[in-house]
Amino acid sequence: MPELRRDPIIGRWVIIATERAKRPTDFSFTKKEDASPPSEKCPFCEGNESLTPPEIYALRKKGTKPNKPGWEIRVVPSISPFLKTEGDLDRHGKGMYDLMNGIGAHEVIIATPHHDSKPFIKGLSQIEKLSGVIIRRMQELKKDQRLKYVLIFKNQGKIAGGSKLGHQHLQLIATPVTPKRVKEELVGSKRYFDYKDRCVFCDMLRQELDDQKRIVLDLGGFVAVNPYCSRFPFETWILPKRHSCDFDSMTKKEIKGYSEIFQLTLKKLVKTLGDFPYNIVLHTAPLRRRKKKGYWETIEADYHWHIEIMPRLTQVAGFEWGSGFYINPVPPEDACKYLKEANNVAT
Amino acid sequence: MPELRRDPIIGRWVIIATERAKRPTDFSFTKKEDASPPSEKCPFCEGNESLTPPEIYALRKKGTKPNKPGWEIRVVPSISPFLKTEGDLDRHGKGMYDLMNGIGAHEVIIATPHHDSKPFIKGLSQIEKLSGVIIRRMQELKKDQRLKYVLIFKNQGKIAGGSKLGHQHLQLIATPVTPKRVKEELVGSKRYFDYKDRCVFCDMLRQELDDQKRIVLDLGGFVAVNPYCSRFPFETWILPKRHSCDFDSMTKKEIKGYSEIFQLTLKKLVKTLGDFPYNIVLHTAPLRRRKKKGYWETIEADYHWHIEIMPRLTQVAGFEWGSGFYINPVPPEDACKYLKEANNVAT
Repeated sequence: MPELRRDPIIGRWVIIATERAKRPTDFSFTKKEDASPPSEKCPFCEGNESLTPPEIYALRKKGTKPNKPGWEIRVVPSISPFLKTEGDLDRHGKGMYDLMNGIGAHEVIIATPHHDSKPFIKGLSQIEKLSGVIIRRMQELKKDQRLKYVLIFKNQGKIAGGSKLGHQHLQLIATPVTPKRVKEELVGSKRYFDYKDRCVFCDMLRQELDDQKRIVLDLGGFVAVNPYCSRFPFETWILPKRHSCDFDSMTKKEIKGYSEIFQLTLKKLVKTLGDFPYNIVLHTAPLRRRKKKGYWETIEADYHWHIEIMPRLTQVAGFEWGSGFYINPVPPEDACKYLKEANNVAT
Repeated sequence: MPELRRDPIIGRWVIIATERAKRPTDFSFTKKEDASPPSEKCPFCEGNESLTPPEIYALRKKGTKPNKPGWEIRVVPSISPFLKTEGDLDRHGKGMYDLMNGIGAHEVIIATPHHDSKPFIKGLSQIEKLSGVIIRRMQELKKDQRLKYVLIFKNQGKIAGGSKLGHQHLQLIATPVTPKRVKEELVGSKRYFDYKDRCVFCDMLRQELDDQKRIVLDLGGFVAVNPYCSRFPFETWILPKRHSCDFDSMTKKEIKGYSEIFQLTLKKLVKTLGDFPYNIVLHTAPLRRRKKKGYWETIEADYHWHIEIMPRLTQVAGFEWGSGFYINPVPPEDACKYLKEANNVAT
């Protein structure tokens, strides 16, 4: 059973893989890379369903059977899960340390039946379907009272921790604790709300829309922006203009608008940066809200879901891990200029 | 002038390079790598002093002149500084955003006159001298009232953001704000102290020394430990057993003990992991302590300086940037076993 351990100084939780632990010789700089498998052996390709664990959910054509061809999006358990579904949390202490069992879920969302390693997913309707599947999984996992957060992320390219499979997919990790970065945002936006009685993200959007210097796109109820305080070159956020703390509260029309701006933003990034490595993380409100009177209402009012696209262009980022101090060699205003100019992006 | 910008949500400061800003084509995945220069052209080699800006400080043999051969350790300004010494902080707002000028210092500490790209510095006495020079620079920079923190770090290997120069050096960045990760530690250790009236690091050391499972070395008044909540495989911290918040408060005898454990720890890591990429960061107390009654004394009592060695073995770390959720595939107890067994490390 993996372990969740809490840092006694700053309170950050870390997943420690106690089974399948790696040895020093397992690390790539001492070991030769495996080549990516050909598409006949790709476990994410249509027809190879038997190469993955049984599916958790799939968007399928009528009349097709589970774990057989005929799907458009398929959700399967990770074959090397960081967290496991079975068991109790068993929170306890070890002297001054806190830990719990690594209960949670680790799923792979296969974004398309076709073998394709392009940095974005083809077809607007496919992204709409994908958003629908993400929402469905979130709502399903919300029912499990042990879980506090659903993290959705995508790693593209080796530098960003992407897989060598060359088949577009996302990952979902459901955790029994709220990730630290999200918690920091929750605390920060609550503090702002307490002071101003307004959402910090809404205020930011208003100022950015007035200013226009960092707005890449303003489309269908959504905005793509290079944040004023971008940590990474070409860091881009996508936010809904309608205040909402939950990704899964989107209406059908909003899903359409979101999918369009998401696809167009990625295309502009690809046009500007080539086949670039990146991480995408969805920041949405936690599954559970504290029962404290008024708190629940506060999160609804003060938090604002958004997507963070983080290109991994610089290796300079080394010491940032240890200091939390970021150095960004591309002002977001410059990044925005390049992205605005990136037109004629092929579909 | 570089800009320091504050994230309005969580309050993190980011350095934005407004001059020398990079263009999309500057990033290495679109551009060919330059090979590392041969040693005759290495600006850090003895004899090539004219290839760097004039030195800020050097530990020199008697009778030798500044910016000429005859030095053992040399401190020069960075040729592409992230922060600059000249000017005013000029803290101000832009609508809801906060910013200030990028005032500070960015120095390179050349650790040896000899061209050597080994992951550790040869010779115990050289490390002692290096520690002495770091302390001297800290005490000098402390006099500048605009500066709040001195960050000392080393990036080794391309993945860790290391330079291609192949000549051992450290970097020093003095900042007008305290880096977020250090602040989190200050806040966390203060909270612990308020509750327990003890230093959280001292308590941790006591428990680890009782337990022994994660203690790599216990030597000359210092301990090398794989933290219970390690974020990275083989993450190793070095802490003084004597409670102290300031790196620059070490006695001569302590500098000797520290240099010995530092060198031996790095050698054990190299013996175990080969020529591995890593980041090292020194966490020490801020230069200024708040004037509030009692606060100064609290930092002295509750904070404990330490070195964090972070091997960069996994690319998996992708989404951690965005979530603050770390996944470590090597339990620190396993890492410790490997490091303990790594004996016969050549000098």
